[in-house]
Amino acid sequence: MRFPEMILRLPDWVERFLSEREYVFATVQERMRLVIELSRLNIENGTGGPFGAAIFEQKSGRLLAVGVNMVVSSNCSVVHAEIVSIAIAQHILGHYDLGSKGMPAYELAASTEPCAMCLGAITWSGVRGLVCGGRDQDARDVGFDEGLKPSNWVRLLEQRNISVSRDILRNEAKAVLLQYHEQGGPVYNGRQGSI
Amino acid sequence: MRFPEMILRLPDWVERFLSEREYVFATVQERMRLVIELSRLNIENGTGGPFGAAIFEQKSGRLLAVGVNMVVSSNCSVVHAEIVSIAIAQHILGHYDLGSKGMPAYELAASTEPCAMCLGAITWSGVRGLVCGGRDQDARDVGFDEGLKPSNWVRLLEQRNISVSRDILRNEAKAVLLQYHEQGGPVYNGRQGSI
Repeated sequence: MRFPEMILRLPDWVERFLSEREYVFATVQERMRLVIELSRLNIENGTGGPFGAAIFEQKSGRLLAVGVNMVVSSNCSVVHAEIVSIAIAQHILGHYDLGSKGMPAYELAASTEPCAMCLGAITWSGVRGLVCGGRDQDARDVGFDEGLKPSNWVRLLEQRNISVSRDILRNEAKAVLLQYHEQGGPVYNGRQGSI
Repeated sequence: MRFPEMILRLPDWVERFLSEREYVFATVQERMRLVIELSRLNIENGTGGPFGAAIFEQKSGRLLAVGVNMVVSSNCSVVHAEIVSIAIAQHILGHYDLGSKGMPAYELAASTEPCAMCLGAITWSGVRGLVCGGRDQDARDVGFDEGLKPSNWVRLLEQRNISVSRDILRNEAKAVLLQYHEQGGPVYNGRQGSI
């Protein structure tokens, strides 16, 4: 049998948008503003769902990698924004563990709280912090399914020494979800188990 | 900034192992035997952890796609066997939903019960069935972490009309986990939250 290779590549507008060689975002609000802007540009460019993510050096705020949702454009249900940012960050550093010895602590910012799959991916990624904009309920409110996620997920992450900051610019993040909803964007995981 | 593209490609031995144009595996036992063999070949070829997965047409048993764990070899914590098989299956069919209209029902066979991330990915993939060999506890017993997974995950999948068959050739699946453990293979997600 032939199994085709898959290429994971960010949309072209991302490198145009981030055209400088280096970016530093000192505060969690600045980091969140970036990922919300990515989520907005992603729907305005028609390259995916209303979700953005990025990985920063936790202390310095230096940007390492970004991700946007590319489920529909890539024909792949796995490529949520968080997954894309993790895969690219690890590819850049050449290591499957962003928490391995000798590395600075990394944190992931997500424009909306992660779904069950991305929550799992975050624990394997090696990041030491998670910064969230919109609540998972905000995604549910516009029709997205968040999956089989333990209700006490914040505490469970913290027990693994992954800090969690919620509701950072929540209204701005929510506004992009609503914008997507109003323009009738596809809710690609919305079958919710129907046959 | 420059964000490198990532290429997801199965190890070379997979196409040599599956050299025929088409394969049909009529029973769940035959399907499980295939994914256990993939898990064994993956560790014997040194291409990843002791996990294999595949996606079949549920009724006919025709093989659509396979996956093996490639975390260490790809420097990517996301590429568990299930994720790889889902991404390749969707790439082959050109659709992000394996349960979309007009498609036959698909089922995913995994040599060991899925971790939290893969459990999430299974619900988004569109497969209508999950067939498991080893228990998640068998993976934990050799040091792997299964993540933030609801304890009633089987019932939750079934509520989404995804059927679950467990313990198919469990001992054979477990034997590969033990073989990996005995040869001292890396447990890449074993930090379990330590700083």
